[in-house]
Amino acid sequence: MNDRVREILSWYDSDNPGTLTNLARLMNHGRIAGTGHFVILPVDQGFEHGPARSFAANPSGYDPRYHFDLAIAAGCNAYAAPLGFLEAGAAEFAGEIPLILKLNNSDSLTPGSDPCPALTGSVDDAIRLGCVAIGFTIYPGSTARNEMFGELRELTIESKRKGLAVVVWSYPRGSGVSKEGETAIDVVGYAAQIACQLGAHIVKVKPPTAHIEQAAAKKVYEKERIPIATLAERVRHVVQWAFNGRRIVIFSGGEAKETSAIFEEVRGIRDGGGFGSIIGRNSFQRPRKEALDFLGQVMDIYAGKK
Amino acid sequence: MNDRVREILSWYDSDNPGTLTNLARLMNHGRIAGTGHFVILPVDQGFEHGPARSFAANPSGYDPRYHFDLAIAAGCNAYAAPLGFLEAGAAEFAGEIPLILKLNNSDSLTPGSDPCPALTGSVDDAIRLGCVAIGFTIYPGSTARNEMFGELRELTIESKRKGLAVVVWSYPRGSGVSKEGETAIDVVGYAAQIACQLGAHIVKVKPPTAHIEQAAAKKVYEKERIPIATLAERVRHVVQWAFNGRRIVIFSGGEAKETSAIFEEVRGIRDGGGFGSIIGRNSFQRPRKEALDFLGQVMDIYAGKK
Amino acid sequence: MNDRVREILSWYDSDNPGTLTNLARLMNHGRIAGTGHFVILPVDQGFEHGPARSFAANPSGYDPRYHFDLAIAAGCNAYAAPLGFLEAGAAEFAGEIPLILKLNNSDSLTPGSDPCPALTGSVDDAIRLGCVAIGFTIYPGSTARNEMFGELRELTIESKRKGLAVVVWSYPRGSGVSKEGETAIDVVGYAAQIACQLGAHIVKVKPPTAHIEQAAAKKVYEKERIPIATLAERVRHVVQWAFNGRRIVIFSGGEAKETSAIFEEVRGIRDGGGFGSIIGRNSFQRPRKEALDFLGQVMDIYAGKK
Amino acid sequence: MNDRVREILSWYDSDNPGTLTNLARLMNHGRIAGTGHFVILPVDQGFEHGPARSFAANPSGYDPRYHFDLAIAAGCNAYAAPLGFLEAGAAEFAGEIPLILKLNNSDSLTPGSDPCPALTGSVDDAIRLGCVAIGFTIYPGSTARNEMFGELRELTIESKRKGLAVVVWSYPRGSGVSKEGETAIDVVGYAAQIACQLGAHIVKVKPPTAHIEQAAAKKVYEKERIPIATLAERVRHVVQWAFNGRRIVIFSGGEAKETSAIFEEVRGIRDGGGFGSIIGRNSFQRPRKEALDFLGQVMDIYAGKK
Amino acid sequence: MNDRVREILSWYDSDNPGTLTNLARLMNHGRIAGTGHFVILPVDQGFEHGPARSFAANPSGYDPRYHFDLAIAAGCNAYAAPLGFLEAGAAEFAGEIPLILKLNNSDSLTPGSDPCPALTGSVDDAIRLGCVAIGFTIYPGSTARNEMFGELRELTIESKRKGLAVVVWSYPRGSGVSKEGETAIDVVGYAAQIACQLGAHIVKVKPPTAHIEQAAAKKVYEKERIPIATLAERVRHVVQWAFNGRRIVIFSGGEAKETSAIFEEVRGIRDGGGFGSIIGRNSFQRPRKEALDFLGQVMDIYAGKK
Repeated sequence: MNDRVREILSWYDSDNPGTLTNLARLMNHGRIAGTGHFVILPVDQGFEHGPARSFAANPSGYDPRYHFDLAIAAGCNAYAAPLGFLEAGAAEFAGEIPLILKLNNSDSLTPGSDPCPALTGSVDDAIRLGCVAIGFTIYPGSTARNEMFGELRELTIESKRKGLAVVVWSYPRGSGVSKEGETAIDVVGYAAQIACQLGAHIVKVKPPTAHIEQAAAKKVYEKERIPIATLAERVRHVVQWAFNGRRIVIFSGGEAKETSAIFEEVRGIRDGGGFGSIIGRNSFQRPRKEALDFLGQVMDIYAGKK
Repeated sequence: MNDRVREILSWYDSDNPGTLTNLARLMNHGRIAGTGHFVILPVDQGFEHGPARSFAANPSGYDPRYHFDLAIAAGCNAYAAPLGFLEAGAAEFAGEIPLILKLNNSDSLTPGSDPCPALTGSVDDAIRLGCVAIGFTIYPGSTARNEMFGELRELTIESKRKGLAVVVWSYPRGSGVSKEGETAIDVVGYAAQIACQLGAHIVKVKPPTAHIEQAAAKKVYEKERIPIATLAERVRHVVQWAFNGRRIVIFSGGEAKETSAIFEEVRGIRDGGGFGSIIGRNSFQRPRKEALDFLGQVMDIYAGKK
Repeated sequence: MNDRVREILSWYDSDNPGTLTNLARLMNHGRIAGTGHFVILPVDQGFEHGPARSFAANPSGYDPRYHFDLAIAAGCNAYAAPLGFLEAGAAEFAGEIPLILKLNNSDSLTPGSDPCPALTGSVDDAIRLGCVAIGFTIYPGSTARNEMFGELRELTIESKRKGLAVVVWSYPRGSGVSKEGETAIDVVGYAAQIACQLGAHIVKVKPPTAHIEQAAAKKVYEKERIPIATLAERVRHVVQWAFNGRRIVIFSGGEAKETSAIFEEVRGIRDGGGFGSIIGRNSFQRPRKEALDFLGQVMDIYAGKK
Repeated sequence: MNDRVREILSWYDSDNPGTLTNLARLMNHGRIAGTGHFVILPVDQGFEHGPARSFAANPSGYDPRYHFDLAIAAGCNAYAAPLGFLEAGAAEFAGEIPLILKLNNSDSLTPGSDPCPALTGSVDDAIRLGCVAIGFTIYPGSTARNEMFGELRELTIESKRKGLAVVVWSYPRGSGVSKEGETAIDVVGYAAQIACQLGAHIVKVKPPTAHIEQAAAKKVYEKERIPIATLAERVRHVVQWAFNGRRIVIFSGGEAKETSAIFEEVRGIRDGGGFGSIIGRNSFQRPRKEALDFLGQVMDIYAGKK
Repeated sequence: MNDRVREILSWYDSDNPGTLTNLARLMNHGRIAGTGHFVILPVDQGFEHGPARSFAANPSGYDPRYHFDLAIAAGCNAYAAPLGFLEAGAAEFAGEIPLILKLNNSDSLTPGSDPCPALTGSVDDAIRLGCVAIGFTIYPGSTARNEMFGELRELTIESKRKGLAVVVWSYPRGSGVSKEGETAIDVVGYAAQIACQLGAHIVKVKPPTAHIEQAAAKKVYEKERIPIATLAERVRHVVQWAFNGRRIVIFSGGEAKETSAIFEEVRGIRDGGGFGSIIGRNSFQRPRKEALDFLGQVMDIYAGKK
């Protein structure tokens, strides 16, 4: 095992060897294995946004096996999905790619501005399906904070006892933050900090903008002249907030957009010391060949080849 | 065992042989055994709508044994009911028809526009009564989503460990959907997707209309020109949304209506690749002889004889 | 054992012999043993209404032993009470009368229009006290429905595994029903159906009035011309709704009233095929001698002697 | 379901509907479904006698799938085997034949004249593999009686709670019986009685000889002039000892022997009111085609066609 | 994943995807990954034989980390050891090699000719240490058979539920077999069959000799003219006895001996269709460089390069 992977594992030395093993599996799989970087395919949009918005653009994606195959062929580090999608391929593709079971999910049919996802799977589902980690979404800023954090607390301690890693999607949302604030640099960094404090091994946030949401934070940024002009600077800043870089922080790809814009963003993440990307719609909504080419290029950027 | 049954079982290869056995029992029983199609008799209306609206039209239905006998004589694949109704016949009719225990139920005495059924039975009840599956209703769009999904999550993992199949009634309802939206094509398909993601083996939805509820979905339908003019097209679409046809989707019969209209609907379901029908009121509210003839004709349509 | 008792037991053939034995004990005890009729003494009013309203009229009733003695002397089929009252006499009167432990109770100190009784005892308490059954109250129509039904679900499966019978007090109440609707014929029948579906062996409801609460039900009554003019007709109707007479339905005595009115009511219940009465206040609030005479006459009515 | 099956089920009315359902499945499957007779294929000889003595004569039998296929193709009522053999086919053949998991087994490597098989599987294995019953061997006459009977006691109560049937192989052996006594009429009948008393639903014994082992028994046979000259008489006698014919008693085929001798024996069993045969070596040690023909003829004898 | 690995996994289709994943991890790791062959380093001799006989020849072996490093550097498929040895390196080497936790062990201080190893670890230890499998030793022929088989029965069902693979060391020993019989072809094959019937995924036996121990078996070998002259023939025979080659059988290296003799033996195992070797003393008692060269050559033989 190369030194970078060992170094990253050393940050998690309170965890048992089972969890370390699964973190190592994530880092040692796929095209950029061993670099300490991550490119993960997540497909929970069928649940979260509905099938139409998710799969109509590339109908192959209606078939759960398509995403296993895509993630494997592309050489992703892992594939993350809700219970049903993993059950529909875990036996057929056993051992071919590390799996992350998303244990909570929202849908767009349920009203309410303060989101609180439903529990949709169990740690023992992750165990029986051979997963390396659980995934869990929290919405800091939602009035349902206590319910979400409390659920995560229980899933986290169970996962760590059973040797799994914990990946937290930390998305500020709800009545506590403005729409613009959801991606504000101070709020994204804060969300990363919260996920780390809750015991996450890997934190997923959105690429932050230069907007500053909280007045109290704004004063500090100005006083300390914290550089946040470029994405790389902002990523560096978020990574610093995630225990000074001693927790793995990865960034979501967001809505489908132009390929060159994504590559630019990925370079920013890489240059700022971000650990990787978790790219759903921009992967599986393209035709397979195009998606493989796209993901390959993203991985090459992280591997320092582009 | 014929090839179609084996093919369907192959979609569930993450499940243990116990669950596969019970899925096979469902498919290998009754008049259309082995076709991969399903006609199931569900009788939970006494609980859900009250006895008057359910059984007064054909008072034989007050007797729980009547429904066992009807389902057996008609050659249905299974009979589904709440705890009390199954307890009242499970010993007498042991081994004569696969049973599905409905584990949650609503009643029409309790007020509220965002439904959340009560738990009314346990997985171990299903085991001691010799059932092949549990049944569970979710109402996507209800603000009580998290409670329902969370309950299903626990019942599902227990059922799968104990070798039972999981049948989910997925009915959009509540403040997140309009009345018209409850049967909108996009919403019904979304409801099917959600049930599959929650780990259902068999999903029951209502026959969808051509209405599109969600603005974001509407754009996709128009852009991708998804055909939804006929019921067959809409059923095909819903089946695609249920893991590209790799989960069993069956359709409810809804309120009592004219026989010819039902047969027309069943043909649409069949032509669209739907797996079958679950027909309650239109069966048990008719006189027995008429009901047997009616169910026989529905089965013949699925068997391709009409 | 006489044929009627055997016939009634045959309706419960999904239950184990332990539960059947306890049902038989209920039917084979007391003055009307073997008739398939029941007169039960329930004393939970000290908990539900407070001691003043319950026992001041006949202060002997403050002593828990009084009620054991009364039920035994009168030849009741059983005595039902909360944990404390049973603990205070179960040893002294061991083997003298079948006991039913009420496992939930409300009190009149707690405010709120949607009742949800508190759990006040356990199935294992019933076992250690030598009871033949548990008792449990549900309030269909209350917004707390799910909590009550969910609790009953767990107590029922445990009781049946441990060979006890399950007696459910099913009283519509709460924001889903009007005051008049609480005893409406359609609502009382619906409440009986719900209790049966939840797995009750014996259901206790209030004598229904000719009022019809639900509009949808009203249409059916009119269309099907269901006779509900006399109490006997209404009782017959409720019994039909309780699995076509294949579940034991008994009727509460309600508030203290004139003796002749009660006898009239009991005759109506008997003539309509009701299985018996459960009479608390009208028994223990009378002087002992009077109460014994009163209960004796009620039993004679059920035994067809009056 | 035909009357004979219903009649047999009526003997087991202390069992829950789950167990009745699985007993019905055994009786309603295969070529002689519905006759109340049984022909079961057991393959535990690989474990009990070693592979050489078991499978060398027909090497197809080394493959666990061979026996599933043989039992299915022959139309046996069930296939019984230890854990490993069932695991190796339960998914592939799910739903095609009722399975019985043998939960204890001996091997011929372990010394000792008082046999006590080892536990080799669990009730929860039977559940996850979709079995209808557990199988368990006892050796009355062995000094290890208490260990075996105690294990069976625990497995039986668990199986009955979980809706499985219990099949007991009751083979007198050990220091308490002579070699000749192992098949003595009094001892075989006694072994059947013991298995029934231990709660077995189905008992398997060896065809008894006319030898009488126990002196005390001999006196009774002589005094009462119990007819035991023919196999049919002896079978009738054993069946009588198994609760006067109210428990299912089936007979083992024993070592491979001439076909005509087996048919003669089967006729004797049938004529004496025996319920069927469980034939291992005489089935799977023949070439497949020959075995199918052989089993078919055995079934025809039980069906009264020969 | 290559076709051979997929084919092997298909034999275990009763297992959950978690167990399949761990079996795949074993096959997809190391120098001969993907060939379906195995070379495993086991180091339990410190426990079983004492440190002197185990590590004095190469004192590096006193350090538990030495063996992790050796197995990793050599490219073994897995490293197997008791609890203490794995705990001493599992964190440091997390993710670098699949681990097998030996859950029972004997020591040479305890007297007795009928061995029964002590339980020395738990399935949850395997989980927290990130292992892919448990290991367990049985001694068929020992009078302590029932204790060993019974323990394995419980560990097996737990391991399979928790997604681990089960590796069984099956060594005939004890008063039921002679010294020569411990490696007799009939006894070794029988031992493989027993392990498979007990639910093992992978069975480890000793290379068999041409000796035949059991008289009853000898007759069969002679009658069927089973070829057992060469090691390859004998291995082929043992593999056939392990469910006709549908279970993974690997062979122990035994006592330290000349290198050329080992290579000869490995070629015999490979030519007979054996799945691999598990070589302890012959590996770790050599100097590291020599051991790496030695193991490399063994792997090359399995990979068909030599």
